Amino acid sequence: MSTLNFTTDSTTDGIRERDFTVGDIPGVLWSPAPGTDPAPLVLMGHGGGTHKRWPAMTGRAHLLAATHGFHVAVIDAPAHGDRPVSAHDDAEVAELFRAREAGEPEGPIVVRYNAHLAKRAVGEWTATLDALQERPEIGTHGPVGYFGLNMATAIGVPFVAGDPRITAAVFGLHWPDALAEAARGITIPIEFVMQWDDEHIPREAALALFDAFASTEKTLHANAGRHKRLPRFESDSAARFLARHLRP
Amino acid sequence: MSTLNFTTDSTTDGIRERDFTVGDIPGVLWSPAPGTDPAPLVLMGHGGGTHKRWPAMTGRAHLLAATHGFHVAVIDAPAHGDRPVSAHDDAEVAELFRAREAGEPEGPIVVRYNAHLAKRAVGEWTATLDALQERPEIGTHGPVGYFGLNMATAIGVPFVAGDPRITAAVFGLHWPDALAEAARGITIPIEFVMQWDDEHIPREAALALFDAFASTEKTLHANAGRHKRLPRFESDSAARFLARHLRP
Repeated sequence: MSTLNFTTDSTTDGIRERDFTVGDIPGVLWSPAPGTDPAPLVLMGHGGGTHKRWPAMTGRAHLLAATHGFHVAVIDAPAHGDRPVSAHDDAEVAELFRAREAGEPEGPIVVRYNAHLAKRAVGEWTATLDALQERPEIGTHGPVGYFGLNMATAIGVPFVAGDPRITAAVFGLHWPDALAEAARGITIPIEFVMQWDDEHIPREAALALFDAFASTEKTLHANAGRHKRLPRFESDSAARFLARHLRP
Repeated sequence: MSTLNFTTDSTTDGIRERDFTVGDIPGVLWSPAPGTDPAPLVLMGHGGGTHKRWPAMTGRAHLLAATHGFHVAVIDAPAHGDRPVSAHDDAEVAELFRAREAGEPEGPIVVRYNAHLAKRAVGEWTATLDALQERPEIGTHGPVGYFGLNMATAIGVPFVAGDPRITAAVFGLHWPDALAEAARGITIPIEFVMQWDDEHIPREAALALFDAFASTEKTLHANAGRHKRLPRFESDSAARFLARHLRP
Protein backbone atom coordinates (compact mmCIF):
# COMPACT_ATOMS: atom_id res chain seq x y z
CA MET A 1 0.00 0.00 0.00
CA SER A 2 1.42 3.36 -1.06
CA THR A 3 1.20 6.50 1.01
CA LEU A 4 0.52 9.94 -0.28
CA ASN A 5 3.49 12.29 -0.62
CA PHE A 6 2.93 15.99 -1.14
CA THR A 7 5.50 17.67 -3.37
CA THR A 8 4.13 21.25 -3.57
CA ASP A 9 1.85 23.42 -1.43
CA SER A 10 0.37 26.74 -2.52
CA THR A 11 -2.83 28.74 -2.10
CA THR A 12 -4.67 30.68 -4.81
CA ASP A 13 -7.93 32.60 -4.27
CA GLY A 14 -8.31 30.91 -0.89
CA ILE A 15 -7.99 27.41 -2.36
CA ARG A 16 -5.07 25.27 -1.23
CA GLU A 17 -3.43 23.26 -4.02
CA ARG A 18 -0.96 20.45 -3.42
CA ASP A 19 0.72 18.18 -5.95
CA PHE A 20 1.10 14.65 -4.70
CA THR A 21 2.23 11.19 -5.69
CA VAL A 22 0.84 7.83 -4.67
CA GLY A 23 3.51 5.38 -5.79
CA ASP A 24 4.19 6.48 -9.37
CA ILE A 25 0.78 8.13 -9.86
CA PRO A 26 0.89 11.94 -9.89
CA GLY A 27 -2.11 13.95 -8.72
CA VAL A 28 -3.34 17.28 -7.40
CA LEU A 29 -5.41 17.87 -4.28
CA TRP A 30 -7.41 21.09 -4.08
CA SER A 31 -8.79 21.92 -0.62
CA PRO A 32 -10.70 24.64 1.18
CA ALA A 33 -8.50 27.00 3.17
CA PRO A 34 -6.83 25.30 6.18
CA GLY A 35 -8.80 25.57 9.39
CA THR A 36 -12.20 24.85 7.87
CA ASP A 37 -14.16 21.83 9.05
CA PRO A 38 -13.65 18.32 7.67
CA ALA A 39 -15.08 18.28 4.16
CA PRO A 40 -16.31 15.65 1.71
CA LEU A 41 -13.93 14.45 -0.99
CA VAL A 42 -14.64 14.48 -4.73
CA LEU A 43 -12.47 12.35 -7.03
CA MET A 44 -12.38 13.91 -10.46
CA GLY A 45 -11.15 12.33 -13.70
CA HIS A 46 -9.94 14.09 -16.84
CA GLY A 47 -10.93 13.31 -20.43
CA GLY A 48 -8.89 11.53 -23.08
CA GLY A 49 -5.90 13.47 -24.39
CA THR A 50 -5.87 15.89 -21.45
CA HIS A 51 -4.42 15.76 -17.93
CA LYS A 52 -4.89 16.58 -14.24
CA ARG A 53 -4.36 20.34 -14.71
CA TRP A 54 -6.46 20.79 -17.86
CA PRO A 55 -8.52 24.01 -17.57
CA ALA A 56 -11.76 22.05 -17.14
CA MET A 57 -10.18 20.27 -14.16
CA THR A 58 -8.79 23.35 -12.42
CA GLY A 59 -12.01 25.26 -13.09
CA ARG A 60 -14.25 22.52 -11.67
CA ALA A 61 -11.88 21.94 -8.75
CA HIS A 62 -12.01 25.62 -7.77
CA LEU A 63 -15.80 25.63 -8.17
CA LEU A 64 -16.18 22.55 -5.94
CA ALA A 65 -13.69 23.75 -3.33
CA ALA A 66 -14.75 27.40 -3.24
CA THR A 67 -18.53 27.11 -3.57
CA HIS A 68 -19.11 23.86 -1.71
CA GLY A 69 -15.99 23.48 0.46
CA PHE A 70 -14.99 20.07 -0.95
CA HIS A 71 -11.58 18.47 -1.22
CA VAL A 72 -11.02 17.62 -4.90
CA ALA A 73 -8.42 15.11 -6.12
CA VAL A 74 -7.43 14.57 -9.75
CA ILE A 75 -4.81 12.07 -10.95
CA ASP A 76 -3.23 11.63 -14.35
CA ALA A 77 -4.74 8.63 -16.15
CA PRO A 78 -2.35 6.03 -17.58
CA ALA A 79 -0.49 7.41 -20.64
CA HIS A 80 -1.69 10.96 -19.86
CA GLY A 81 -0.09 14.05 -18.30
CA ASP A 82 3.16 13.14 -16.51
CA ARG A 83 2.70 9.38 -17.02
CA PRO A 84 4.81 7.27 -19.41
CA VAL A 85 3.40 6.45 -22.84
CA SER A 86 3.94 2.98 -24.35
CA ALA A 87 4.23 1.98 -27.98
CA HIS A 88 0.71 0.52 -27.67
CA ASP A 89 -0.61 3.88 -26.44
CA ASP A 90 1.08 5.66 -29.34
CA ALA A 91 -0.40 3.21 -31.82
CA GLU A 92 -3.94 3.56 -30.45
CA VAL A 93 -3.79 7.37 -30.46
CA ALA A 94 -2.40 7.32 -34.01
CA GLU A 95 -5.24 5.02 -35.05
CA LEU A 96 -7.77 7.42 -33.48
CA PHE A 97 -6.29 10.39 -35.35
CA ARG A 98 -6.23 8.38 -38.58
CA ALA A 99 -9.91 7.46 -38.21
CA ARG A 100 -10.82 11.05 -37.35
CA GLU A 101 -8.92 12.35 -40.39
CA ALA A 102 -10.60 9.75 -42.62
CA GLY A 103 -14.06 10.62 -41.29
CA GLU A 104 -14.52 7.12 -39.87
CA PRO A 105 -16.37 6.49 -36.58
CA GLU A 106 -14.20 7.12 -33.52
CA GLY A 107 -16.36 5.00 -31.23
CA PRO A 108 -14.82 1.56 -31.77
CA ILE A 109 -11.30 2.88 -31.14
CA VAL A 110 -12.19 5.07 -28.16
CA VAL A 111 -14.26 2.33 -26.53
CA ARG A 112 -11.48 -0.25 -26.94
CA TYR A 113 -8.62 2.01 -25.85
CA ASN A 114 -10.46 3.51 -22.87
CA ALA A 115 -11.42 0.02 -21.67
CA HIS A 116 -7.73 -0.91 -21.91
CA LEU A 117 -6.72 2.14 -19.84
CA ALA A 118 -9.52 1.57 -17.32
CA LYS A 119 -8.10 -1.85 -16.42
CA ARG A 120 -5.08 -0.11 -14.92
CA ALA A 121 -6.79 3.10 -13.82
CA VAL A 122 -9.39 1.47 -11.54
CA GLY A 123 -6.70 0.07 -9.24
CA GLU A 124 -4.90 3.39 -9.30
CA TRP A 125 -8.03 5.19 -8.09
CA THR A 126 -8.45 2.61 -5.32
CA ALA A 127 -4.85 3.16 -4.16
CA THR A 128 -5.25 6.94 -4.41
CA LEU A 129 -8.45 6.92 -2.36
CA ASP A 130 -6.84 4.62 0.23
CA ALA A 131 -3.95 7.08 0.55
CA LEU A 132 -6.18 10.19 0.61
CA GLN A 133 -8.28 8.71 3.40
CA GLU A 134 -5.15 8.38 5.55
CA ARG A 135 -4.94 12.19 5.61
CA PRO A 136 -6.49 13.59 8.81
CA GLU A 137 -8.36 16.39 6.97
CA ILE A 138 -10.13 13.76 4.85
CA GLY A 139 -10.33 10.56 6.91
CA THR A 140 -12.40 7.46 6.31
CA HIS A 141 -15.76 8.68 7.58
CA GLY A 142 -16.73 11.39 5.11
CA PRO A 143 -18.76 10.80 1.96
CA VAL A 144 -16.88 10.53 -1.34
CA GLY A 145 -18.12 11.57 -4.79
CA TYR A 146 -16.83 10.91 -8.31
CA PHE A 147 -17.04 13.35 -11.24
CA GLY A 148 -15.73 12.26 -14.63
CA LEU A 149 -16.90 12.58 -18.25
CA ASN A 150 -15.61 11.09 -21.51
CA MET A 151 -12.63 8.79 -20.72
CA ALA A 152 -13.20 9.50 -17.02
CA THR A 153 -16.60 7.83 -17.35
CA ALA A 154 -14.96 4.79 -18.97
CA ILE A 155 -12.67 4.62 -15.93
CA GLY A 156 -15.20 5.80 -13.37
CA VAL A 157 -18.04 3.39 -14.08
CA PRO A 158 -16.03 0.21 -13.29
CA PHE A 159 -14.29 2.02 -10.41
CA VAL A 160 -17.54 3.20 -8.79
CA ALA A 161 -19.22 -0.17 -9.42
CA GLY A 162 -16.55 -1.83 -7.30
CA ASP A 163 -15.93 0.73 -4.55
CA PRO A 164 -18.70 1.19 -1.97
CA ARG A 165 -16.99 4.32 -0.59
CA ILE A 166 -18.33 6.34 -3.53
CA THR A 167 -21.85 7.54 -2.70
CA ALA A 168 -22.72 9.86 -5.65
CA ALA A 169 -21.30 10.21 -9.15
CA VAL A 170 -21.48 12.39 -12.26
CA PHE A 171 -20.85 10.57 -15.53
CA GLY A 172 -21.49 11.12 -19.22
CA LEU A 173 -20.34 11.49 -22.82
CA HIS A 174 -19.52 7.85 -23.47
CA TRP A 175 -20.69 4.75 -25.30
CA PRO A 176 -22.38 1.88 -23.42
CA ASP A 177 -20.49 -0.99 -25.08
CA ALA A 178 -17.86 -1.68 -22.42
CA LEU A 179 -19.72 0.01 -19.53
CA ALA A 180 -23.37 -1.08 -19.43
CA GLU A 181 -22.67 -4.27 -17.49
CA ALA A 182 -20.80 -2.43 -14.71
CA ALA A 183 -23.46 0.34 -14.75
CA ARG A 184 -26.12 -2.27 -14.02
CA GLY A 185 -24.34 -2.89 -10.72
CA ILE A 186 -24.37 0.79 -9.68
CA THR A 187 -27.19 1.91 -7.36
CA ILE A 188 -25.91 5.25 -5.95
CA PRO A 189 -27.40 8.58 -7.15
CA ILE A 190 -26.15 9.49 -10.63
CA GLU A 191 -26.20 12.65 -12.74
CA PHE A 192 -25.45 11.82 -16.38
CA VAL A 193 -24.78 14.27 -19.21
CA MET A 194 -25.01 13.71 -22.95
CA GLN A 195 -25.02 15.92 -26.03
CA TRP A 196 -28.24 15.60 -28.05
CA ASP A 197 -26.46 16.17 -31.39
CA ASP A 198 -23.23 14.32 -30.59
CA GLU A 199 -21.44 13.53 -33.85
CA HIS A 200 -19.47 10.67 -32.25
CA ILE A 201 -21.81 9.01 -29.74
CA PRO A 202 -25.17 8.00 -31.25
CA ARG A 203 -28.13 9.33 -29.28
CA GLU A 204 -29.45 5.82 -28.65
CA ALA A 205 -26.04 4.73 -27.33
CA ALA A 206 -25.89 7.55 -24.77
CA LEU A 207 -29.48 6.88 -23.67
CA ALA A 208 -28.70 3.17 -23.34
CA LEU A 209 -25.80 3.86 -20.97
CA PHE A 210 -27.98 6.15 -18.82
CA ASP A 211 -30.69 3.50 -18.82
CA ALA A 212 -28.26 0.82 -17.63
CA PHE A 213 -27.61 2.37 -14.19
CA ALA A 214 -29.63 0.57 -11.51
CA SER A 215 -29.87 3.74 -9.41
CA THR A 216 -33.36 4.72 -8.27
CA GLU A 217 -32.11 8.33 -8.15
CA LYS A 218 -30.63 9.20 -11.51
CA THR A 219 -30.98 12.24 -13.73
CA LEU A 220 -30.12 12.63 -17.41
CA HIS A 221 -29.15 16.07 -18.73
CA ALA A 222 -29.19 16.19 -22.54
CA ASN A 223 -28.19 19.45 -24.18
CA ALA A 224 -28.61 20.46 -27.79
CA GLY A 225 -25.26 20.64 -29.55
CA ARG A 226 -22.29 18.60 -30.71
CA HIS A 227 -19.85 16.48 -28.70
CA LYS A 228 -17.61 19.24 -27.39
CA ARG A 229 -20.36 21.80 -26.70
CA LEU A 230 -21.32 20.71 -23.18
CA PRO A 231 -22.67 23.95 -21.65
CA ARG A 232 -20.67 25.50 -18.84
CA PHE A 233 -23.74 25.49 -16.58
CA GLU A 234 -23.53 21.69 -16.39
CA SER A 235 -20.47 22.09 -14.13
CA ASP A 236 -22.58 24.18 -11.75
CA SER A 237 -25.31 21.55 -11.91
CA ALA A 238 -22.84 18.72 -11.20
CA ALA A 239 -21.48 20.66 -8.22
CA ARG A 240 -24.99 21.18 -6.84
CA PHE A 241 -25.81 17.50 -7.38
CA LEU A 242 -22.67 16.46 -5.45
CA ALA A 243 -23.43 18.97 -2.70
CA ARG A 244 -27.00 17.64 -2.40
CA HIS A 245 -25.74 14.10 -1.85
CA LEU A 246 -22.41 14.58 -0.07
CA ARG A 247 -23.65 17.28 2.33
CA PRO A 248 -27.17 16.08 3.13
CA MET B 1 -59.30 44.07 -25.31
CA SER B 2 -59.87 43.44 -21.62
CA THR B 3 -58.08 45.24 -18.84
CA LEU B 4 -56.76 43.67 -15.68
CA ASN B 5 -58.83 44.19 -12.51
CA PHE B 6 -57.32 43.39 -9.14
CA THR B 7 -59.79 42.01 -6.59
CA THR B 8 -57.50 41.26 -3.61
CA ASP B 9 -54.12 42.50 -2.38
CA SER B 10 -52.10 40.89 0.39
CA THR B 11 -48.46 40.23 1.29
CA THR B 12 -47.03 37.00 2.72
CA ASP B 13 -43.34 36.44 3.53
CA GLY B 14 -42.48 39.58 1.57
CA ILE B 15 -44.31 38.41 -1.56
CA ARG B 16 -47.26 40.48 -2.77
CA GLU B 17 -50.22 38.40 -3.98
CA ARG B 18 -53.13 39.85 -5.94
CA ASP B 19 -56.13 38.06 -7.40
CA PHE B 20 -57.17 39.49 -10.73
CA THR B 21 -59.58 39.01 -13.60
CA VAL B 22 -59.07 39.67 -17.29
CA GLY B 23 -62.59 39.53 -18.71
CA ASP B 24 -63.94 36.31 -17.22
CA ILE B 25 -60.52 34.72 -16.67
CA PRO B 26 -59.45 34.60 -13.02
CA GLY B 27 -55.77 34.70 -12.10
CA VAL B 28 -53.21 35.44 -9.42
CA LEU B 29 -50.21 37.74 -9.69
CA TRP B 30 -47.32 37.19 -7.27
CA SER B 31 -44.78 40.03 -7.13
CA PRO B 32 -41.65 41.02 -5.26
CA ALA B 33 -42.28 43.52 -2.47
CA PRO B 34 -43.37 46.95 -3.78
CA GLY B 35 -40.52 49.36 -4.32
CA THR B 36 -38.18 46.88 -5.95
CA ASP B 37 -36.97 47.50 -9.49
CA PRO B 38 -38.95 46.50 -12.59
CA ALA B 39 -38.78 42.71 -12.83
CA PRO B 40 -39.26 40.10 -15.54
CA LEU B 41 -42.60 38.32 -15.77
CA VAL B 42 -43.11 34.55 -15.73
CA LEU B 43 -46.42 33.12 -16.93
CA MET B 44 -47.09 29.84 -15.18
CA GLY B 45 -49.67 27.21 -16.11
CA HIS B 46 -51.18 24.52 -13.86
CA GLY B 47 -51.65 20.85 -14.67
CA GLY B 48 -54.85 19.03 -15.56
CA GLY B 49 -57.36 18.66 -12.71
CA THR B 50 -55.71 21.36 -10.59
CA HIS B 51 -55.97 25.17 -10.50
CA LYS B 52 -54.15 28.48 -10.10
CA ARG B 53 -53.59 28.07 -6.34
CA TRP B 54 -52.54 24.43 -6.36
CA PRO B 55 -49.59 23.94 -3.95
CA ALA B 56 -47.16 23.40 -6.83
CA MET B 57 -48.21 26.79 -8.24
CA THR B 58 -47.97 28.78 -5.00
CA GLY B 59 -44.68 27.05 -4.14
CA ARG B 60 -43.08 27.79 -7.51
CA ALA B 61 -44.50 31.33 -7.52
CA HIS B 62 -42.92 32.08 -4.14
CA LEU B 63 -39.64 30.52 -5.26
CA LEU B 64 -39.57 32.62 -8.44
CA ALA B 65 -40.64 35.84 -6.71
CA ALA B 66 -38.52 35.48 -3.58
CA THR B 67 -35.32 33.98 -5.00
CA HIS B 68 -35.24 35.68 -8.39
CA GLY B 69 -37.49 38.72 -7.93
CA PHE B 70 -39.88 37.82 -10.76
CA HIS B 71 -43.53 38.68 -11.22
CA VAL B 72 -45.44 35.41 -11.62
CA ALA B 73 -48.93 35.16 -13.10
CA VAL B 74 -51.10 32.03 -13.10
CA ILE B 75 -54.62 31.81 -14.58
CA ASP B 76 -57.21 29.08 -14.30
CA ALA B 77 -57.34 27.02 -17.48
CA PRO B 78 -60.75 26.50 -19.12
CA ALA B 79 -62.94 24.11 -17.05
CA HIS B 80 -60.52 24.36 -14.10
CA GLY B 81 -60.51 26.23 -10.77
CA ASP B 82 -63.13 28.97 -10.74
CA ARG B 83 -64.04 28.46 -14.43
CA PRO B 84 -67.36 26.95 -15.62
CA VAL B 85 -67.40 23.29 -16.62
CA SER B 86 -69.44 22.14 -19.64
CA ALA B 87 -71.14 18.81 -20.27
CA HIS B 88 -68.34 18.05 -22.77
CA ASP B 89 -65.73 18.70 -20.05
CA ASP B 90 -67.57 16.40 -17.65
CA ALA B 91 -67.77 13.67 -20.27
CA GLU B 92 -64.06 13.85 -21.11
CA VAL B 93 -63.02 13.75 -17.46
CA ALA B 94 -65.37 10.83 -16.84
CA GLU B 95 -63.85 9.03 -19.83
CA LEU B 96 -60.35 9.63 -18.45
CA PHE B 97 -61.32 8.22 -15.04
CA ARG B 98 -63.00 5.24 -16.72
CA ALA B 99 -59.87 4.47 -18.76
CA ARG B 100 -57.66 4.86 -15.68
CA GLU B 101 -59.89 2.53 -13.68
CA ALA B 102 -59.88 -0.01 -16.50
CA GLY B 103 -56.09 0.14 -16.82
CA GLU B 104 -56.35 1.48 -20.38
CA PRO B 105 -53.86 4.04 -21.76
CA GLU B 106 -54.67 7.60 -20.70
CA GLY B 107 -52.68 9.17 -23.52
CA PRO B 108 -55.30 9.28 -26.29
CA ILE B 109 -57.88 10.92 -23.99
CA VAL B 110 -55.47 13.40 -22.38
CA VAL B 111 -53.96 14.41 -25.72
CA ARG B 112 -57.38 14.97 -27.28
CA TYR B 113 -58.93 16.82 -24.33
CA ASN B 114 -55.88 19.02 -23.68
CA ALA B 115 -55.75 19.99 -27.36
CA HIS B 116 -59.42 20.95 -27.09
CA LEU B 117 -58.74 23.12 -24.01
CA ALA B 118 -55.62 24.65 -25.58
CA LYS B 119 -57.69 26.07 -28.44
CA ARG B 120 -59.41 28.39 -25.97
CA ALA B 121 -56.53 28.79 -23.52
CA VAL B 122 -54.00 30.19 -26.01
CA GLY B 123 -56.15 33.27 -26.67
CA GLU B 124 -56.73 33.65 -22.95
CA TRP B 125 -52.98 33.75 -22.29
CA THR B 126 -52.56 36.34 -25.05
CA ALA B 127 -55.26 38.55 -23.50
CA THR B 128 -53.80 38.06 -20.02
CA LEU B 129 -50.30 38.99 -21.16
CA ASP B 130 -51.67 42.05 -23.00
CA ALA B 131 -53.40 43.17 -19.81
CA LEU B 132 -50.42 42.42 -17.55
CA GLN B 133 -48.13 44.46 -19.78
CA GLU B 134 -50.37 47.50 -19.27
CA ARG B 135 -49.36 47.48 -15.61
CA PRO B 136 -46.54 49.98 -14.96
CA GLU B 137 -44.58 47.55 -12.74
CA ILE B 138 -44.45 45.07 -15.65
CA GLY B 139 -44.62 47.08 -18.89
CA THR B 140 -43.91 45.98 -22.43
CA HIS B 141 -40.12 46.09 -22.39
CA GLY B 142 -39.18 43.35 -19.96
CA PRO B 143 -38.52 39.75 -20.92
CA VAL B 144 -41.31 37.21 -20.38
CA GLY B 145 -40.91 33.51 -19.54
CA TYR B 146 -43.36 30.59 -19.54
CA PHE B 147 -43.32 27.66 -17.11
CA GLY B 148 -45.88 24.89 -17.51
CA LEU B 149 -45.84 21.08 -17.33
CA ASN B 150 -48.46 18.44 -18.15
CA MET B 151 -51.62 20.20 -19.46
CA ALA B 152 -49.75 23.51 -19.20
CA THR B 153 -47.32 22.19 -21.81
CA ALA B 154 -50.23 21.28 -24.10
CA ILE B 155 -51.41 24.88 -23.75
CA GLY B 156 -47.98 26.50 -23.57
CA VAL B 157 -46.40 25.01 -26.70
CA PRO B 158 -48.95 26.50 -29.13
CA PHE B 159 -49.08 29.72 -27.08
CA VAL B 160 -45.29 30.19 -27.06
CA ALA B 161 -45.00 29.19 -30.73
CA GLY B 162 -47.29 32.09 -31.62
CA ASP B 163 -46.19 34.82 -29.19
CA PRO B 164 -42.76 36.38 -29.76
CA ARG B 165 -42.90 38.12 -26.38
CA ILE B 166 -41.96 34.83 -24.66
CA THR B 167 -38.16 34.47 -24.66
CA ALA B 168 -37.57 31.32 -22.55
CA ALA B 169 -39.82 28.43 -21.55
CA VAL B 170 -39.94 25.34 -19.32
CA PHE B 171 -42.09 22.49 -20.63
CA GLY B 172 -42.48 18.77 -20.07
CA LEU B 173 -44.48 15.70 -19.14
CA HIS B 174 -46.57 15.46 -22.29
CA TRP B 175 -47.04 13.48 -25.49
CA PRO B 176 -45.84 14.83 -28.85
CA ASP B 177 -48.93 13.94 -30.88
CA ALA B 178 -50.70 17.33 -30.91
CA LEU B 179 -47.62 19.43 -30.07
CA ALA B 180 -44.65 18.42 -32.23
CA GLU B 181 -45.68 20.59 -35.16
CA ALA B 182 -45.92 23.73 -33.03
CA ALA B 183 -42.69 22.77 -31.21
CA ARG B 184 -40.87 22.73 -34.55
CA GLY B 185 -41.66 26.45 -34.79
CA ILE B 186 -40.14 27.30 -31.39
CA THR B 187 -36.56 28.58 -31.34
CA ILE B 188 -36.24 30.19 -27.88
CA PRO B 189 -34.24 28.47 -25.10
CA ILE B 190 -36.15 25.53 -23.62
CA GLU B 191 -35.77 23.40 -20.50
CA PHE B 192 -37.82 20.19 -20.83
CA VAL B 193 -38.52 17.64 -18.10
CA MET B 194 -39.64 14.04 -18.45
CA GLN B 195 -39.88 11.02 -16.16
CA TRP B 196 -37.72 8.11 -17.33
CA ASP B 197 -40.18 5.49 -16.02
CA ASP B 198 -43.41 7.33 -16.83
CA GLU B 199 -46.27 4.80 -16.82
CA HIS B 200 -48.43 7.03 -19.03
CA ILE B 201 -46.08 8.76 -21.49
CA PRO B 202 -43.84 6.30 -23.38
CA ARG B 203 -40.14 7.21 -23.16
CA GLU B 204 -39.86 7.52 -26.94
CA ALA B 205 -42.87 9.87 -27.01
CA ALA B 206 -41.33 12.25 -24.46
CA LEU B 207 -37.98 12.19 -26.27
CA ALA B 208 -39.74 12.88 -29.58
CA LEU B 209 -41.39 16.01 -28.19
CA PHE B 210 -38.06 17.30 -26.81
CA ASP B 211 -36.45 16.54 -30.16
CA ALA B 212 -39.10 18.52 -32.04
CA PHE B 213 -38.15 21.93 -30.60
CA ALA B 214 -36.08 23.91 -33.10
CA SER B 215 -34.23 25.72 -30.29
CA THR B 216 -30.43 25.68 -30.52
CA GLU B 217 -30.40 26.05 -26.72
CA LYS B 218 -32.47 23.29 -25.22
CA THR B 219 -31.90 20.96 -22.29
CA LEU B 220 -33.68 17.73 -21.41
CA HIS B 221 -33.89 16.65 -17.77
CA ALA B 222 -34.99 13.03 -17.43
CA ASN B 223 -35.37 11.67 -13.90
CA ALA B 224 -35.80 8.07 -12.83
CA GLY B 225 -39.29 7.44 -11.53
CA ARG B 226 -42.95 7.35 -12.46
CA HIS B 227 -45.18 10.10 -13.86
CA LYS B 228 -45.94 11.95 -10.65
CA ARG B 229 -42.45 11.64 -9.10
CA LEU B 230 -40.85 14.72 -10.66
CA PRO B 231 -38.16 15.63 -8.09
CA ARG B 232 -38.59 18.88 -6.19
CA PHE B 233 -35.14 20.05 -7.30
CA GLU B 234 -36.46 20.44 -10.86
CA SER B 235 -38.38 23.52 -9.68
CA ASP B 236 -35.11 25.05 -8.51
CA SER B 237 -33.53 24.14 -11.83
CA ALA B 238 -36.40 25.69 -13.80
CA ALA B 239 -36.12 28.88 -11.73
CA ARG B 240 -32.37 29.07 -12.40
CA PHE B 241 -32.95 28.44 -16.11
CA LEU B 242 -35.50 31.28 -16.26
CA ALA B 243 -33.18 33.58 -14.30
CA ARG B 244 -30.29 32.80 -16.68
CA HIS B 245 -32.37 33.82 -19.69
CA LEU B 246 -34.66 36.54 -18.31
CA ARG B 247 -31.96 38.34 -16.29
CA PRO B 248 -28.94 38.04 -18.57
